[in-house]
Amino acid sequence: MKDIVIHEVGPRDGLQVEKTVVPKEEKIKWIEQLIDAGIKIIQVGSFVNPQKVPQMGDTDELFSYFSQPGKKPGDVILSGLVLNEKGLERGINCGVEMFCMGVSASETHSQKNTGMSTSEALERITAMAKEAMKAGKRVQVSVQSAFGCGFEGPIPEETVLGIVGKYLENGIKNISLADTAGHAYPPLVENLFSRIHRLDPSVELTAHFHNTYGLGLTNCFVAMQNGVKYLESAFGGLGGCPFTKVPAGNVSTEDLVHTLQRMGLCLDINLEKLVDLAKNIGQFLGKELPGFIMKSGPIVNFKRKEQ
Amino acid sequence: MKDIVIHEVGPRDGLQVEKTVVPKEEKIKWIEQLIDAGIKIIQVGSFVNPQKVPQMGDTDELFSYFSQPGKKPGDVILSGLVLNEKGLERGINCGVEMFCMGVSASETHSQKNTGMSTSEALERITAMAKEAMKAGKRVQVSVQSAFGCGFEGPIPEETVLGIVGKYLENGIKNISLADTAGHAYPPLVENLFSRIHRLDPSVELTAHFHNTYGLGLTNCFVAMQNGVKYLESAFGGLGGCPFTKVPAGNVSTEDLVHTLQRMGLCLDINLEKLVDLAKNIGQFLGKELPGFIMKSGPIVNFKRKEQ
Repeated sequence: MKDIVIHEVGPRDGLQVEKTVVPKEEKIKWIEQLIDAGIKIIQVGSFVNPQKVPQMGDTDELFSYFSQPGKKPGDVILSGLVLNEKGLERGINCGVEMFCMGVSASETHSQKNTGMSTSEALERITAMAKEAMKAGKRVQVSVQSAFGCGFEGPIPEETVLGIVGKYLENGIKNISLADTAGHAYPPLVENLFSRIHRLDPSVELTAHFHNTYGLGLTNCFVAMQNGVKYLESAFGGLGGCPFTKVPAGNVSTEDLVHTLQRMGLCLDINLEKLVDLAKNIGQFLGKELPGFIMKSGPIVNFKRKEQ
Repeated sequence: MKDIVIHEVGPRDGLQVEKTVVPKEEKIKWIEQLIDAGIKIIQVGSFVNPQKVPQMGDTDELFSYFSQPGKKPGDVILSGLVLNEKGLERGINCGVEMFCMGVSASETHSQKNTGMSTSEALERITAMAKEAMKAGKRVQVSVQSAFGCGFEGPIPEETVLGIVGKYLENGIKNISLADTAGHAYPPLVENLFSRIHRLDPSVELTAHFHNTYGLGLTNCFVAMQNGVKYLESAFGGLGGCPFTKVPAGNVSTEDLVHTLQRMGLCLDINLEKLVDLAKNIGQFLGKELPGFIMKSGPIVNFKRKEQ
């Protein structure tokens, strides 16, 4: 449990469902504040149709901005979500360093989200991932609705492992399981991640949980116990997939960092700056965000006396 | 992790800080609904000064009511919190079946809560516990602020284990660690409970977490992994100790039961009835309660398809 890395998805998964379209300049400020706080991977946006999702309309411009020399430190990776070949092309053109893409393990969710079946999407995403890797990019592939679906209910573990197997066969090692519907619970998290690890011990595992039923942090903890290195979270606990049945926020980045720091991890991240950012975002959006620490304040004393 | 038992503390820890003094008739209805939903241990109230804590002014009457023949099933245990000898006497007179009492591991919290030092309180509570046991009652003794204190910060593990050791020496085996300030986090939960279990494998362990920093359910899960059988929670996630620095609600009973049932545990509890009760209580108190499931609704499908 030593090398946990936060992948901040607030600018994408957090903002894509907000009524307010956040101006590019504001997003740049927020991303800069995330970098300043010590976050090393940040999902800047998704390459979708700007007419359909105006919240993500400035994604290309944001990447172009941060691709300019001196606009961000070299050890910070900016990721972008792509859904199709056109998005991939746009992403390559504007300087995306890391591409995220995925397939839903739920047929219903896959149809609603992409208009494709799971197996069609899997063919397409695998080909896209290979193309991005050929272009020298980092690639993370995910299984969405991996822990259950608001429409279909439980998803067989074999379905998830089948998708993961296809990724691995194609040499894609950075694999994320996303709990789009928030259905994950500890034994299932343990099973899926440990089974993937057994399939290929060299895999790099990412977990993405939503806090729909209050289990986001618990599932992060269990994922960490089972070999997951990358945890995706959003400032203030914003977010929620618009194509799921009961949308709810991501795990809050500040709450997650607070927990990790209590455990002696991620101590190089400046929690105070993350809390300030979450408060600013809540103020900007004019609503109360679900994060706990932004309300309670962090526990100041991280080290235990007897140690 | 098979025999988890919920100890509902809503009528006591949930209501003691509410501005609204809930009438006795309403409390009786709520307790009956808890019983109807399948909760087996319910903390009805505390024996404190009714002038100082009017919310608990009807505790004796509530116990007298439920002590009447036919007012509750025989397998349901009603517990009462006592702070001193007078409270114990009152409790014995009105038919309390299970006495809960405790000592704070934090000197500051102990002084604020009881006006006594930790060691003074420990002498007194141990003597009271023995008296209650002599009277044929069930007794649960607790260490409050066991995982840290809002005033003092971290509490040395040895302080907590010292108090527990004294309990065990006196033959009191039902021991609770209470996270009054909400400071608990997974490795500390693991350490403390596993160390107590090593001190005496025949101990019966209870955990009581507050959700101040969003870790309530996570800590419950880790407690269960480390031999804890009884989990204390409150309807709707109400509650909070008035003498702590950042008071926040208990773990919500519905959220906890929802999680346990996802894991195949506590399937004899009727979650729907608990959710209805939490909603009614929120309506009665005229405020939004922190519970998740009462807002999102439960995930309907508990069994996974492939099993």
